[in-house]
Amino acid sequence: MDRITLFDADVLKEIDYSKGDCKMNQYGLSCESPGEDLRLRPLASDDYNKGFMDLLSQLTKIGNVTEEKFLKRFNAMRDHHGTYYIIVVENTKADKILASGSLIVEQKFIHEIALRGRIEDIVVDDSCRGRRIGQLIVETLLLLSEKLGCYKTSLECRDPLLGFYKKFGFQGEKDQNHLIKRFFH
Amino acid sequence: MDRITLFDADVLKEIDYSKGDCKMNQYGLSCESPGEDLRLRPLASDDYNKGFMDLLSQLTKIGNVTEEKFLKRFNAMRDHHGTYYIIVVENTKADKILASGSLIVEQKFIHEIALRGRIEDIVVDDSCRGRRIGQLIVETLLLLSEKLGCYKTSLECRDPLLGFYKKFGFQGEKDQNHLIKRFFH
Repeated sequence: MDRITLFDADVLKEIDYSKGDCKMNQYGLSCESPGEDLRLRPLASDDYNKGFMDLLSQLTKIGNVTEEKFLKRFNAMRDHHGTYYIIVVENTKADKILASGSLIVEQKFIHEIALRGRIEDIVVDDSCRGRRIGQLIVETLLLLSEKLGCYKTSLECRDPLLGFYKKFGFQGEKDQNHLIKRFFH
Repeated sequence: MDRITLFDADVLKEIDYSKGDCKMNQYGLSCESPGEDLRLRPLASDDYNKGFMDLLSQLTKIGNVTEEKFLKRFNAMRDHHGTYYIIVVENTKADKILASGSLIVEQKFIHEIALRGRIEDIVVDDSCRGRRIGQLIVETLLLLSEKLGCYKTSLECRDPLLGFYKKFGFQGEKDQNHLIKRFFH
């Protein structure tokens, strides 16, 4: 199979990092300049061989996923045009995925046929901490969700990351509870 | 356009209401017997004319949505096969939608290529309170999410509804925060 991307990379090039409270410009970071030897781009069909699943295993359990299963899910996501925006940061010298994050766009009928964004599965390899890669990924997905027309974008995080995410303008909301029912782990 | 449903109604018929703590059996309720003069089914393309958007306006702002806009979004959701499960309860005598709820299924790479469910936009018309319609809708979507293979299903609710949702087995989780950034209302 030829290498294909999960979504059209052009949509990333149009992101305006000078918007709002975004601090990427002052750090000289953007999706086109994520740092030396790094490339920020959509997830691609050959990223299974560049350690994408290994990276996710730093975040949570991933189980035993073959390349075939990876590609099946990749293609299903890709067919859901406008829904799955998974970006990765690749070390171009090592051909290795070092960071990733997902924006999922939900279509709604409320709020004048709105779109709602959700940021999920942010992970940065231990080897590239301190290079603001996590910040760049979150800011990129957040600006992308706004650009796509989402009326709001949410994420879930553990207590130690509250301070990190609040810097992007994320807030807990009063009188709002998030409840979960687990069927298996 | 011929009347079409958002998803195949057969998937609802296979739901087993005797599972887990589900209390629907003891109330004699199921998707096939939601109550006198009521019908539970997938959202359909002609529900715009049966008051579906008016019903949603009891939940939140819906703006000015024409039938054309409704159908465009309906078809986009339908094309995303396996993602949008919106069910409605119709008063068959009045041809009017009285209740609705949505299950959104997200495809993931983590947890062995998992699915994750989200229950959204539960609304019951004031005229049919006390008939356990809300309970039937939530239980149906929850059992559906489990049947489809979701490893967990979540929802957001306001404080006064915490007790209602906890009865289904939903729980708040320790060290988990839900943060939102709003772009417009």
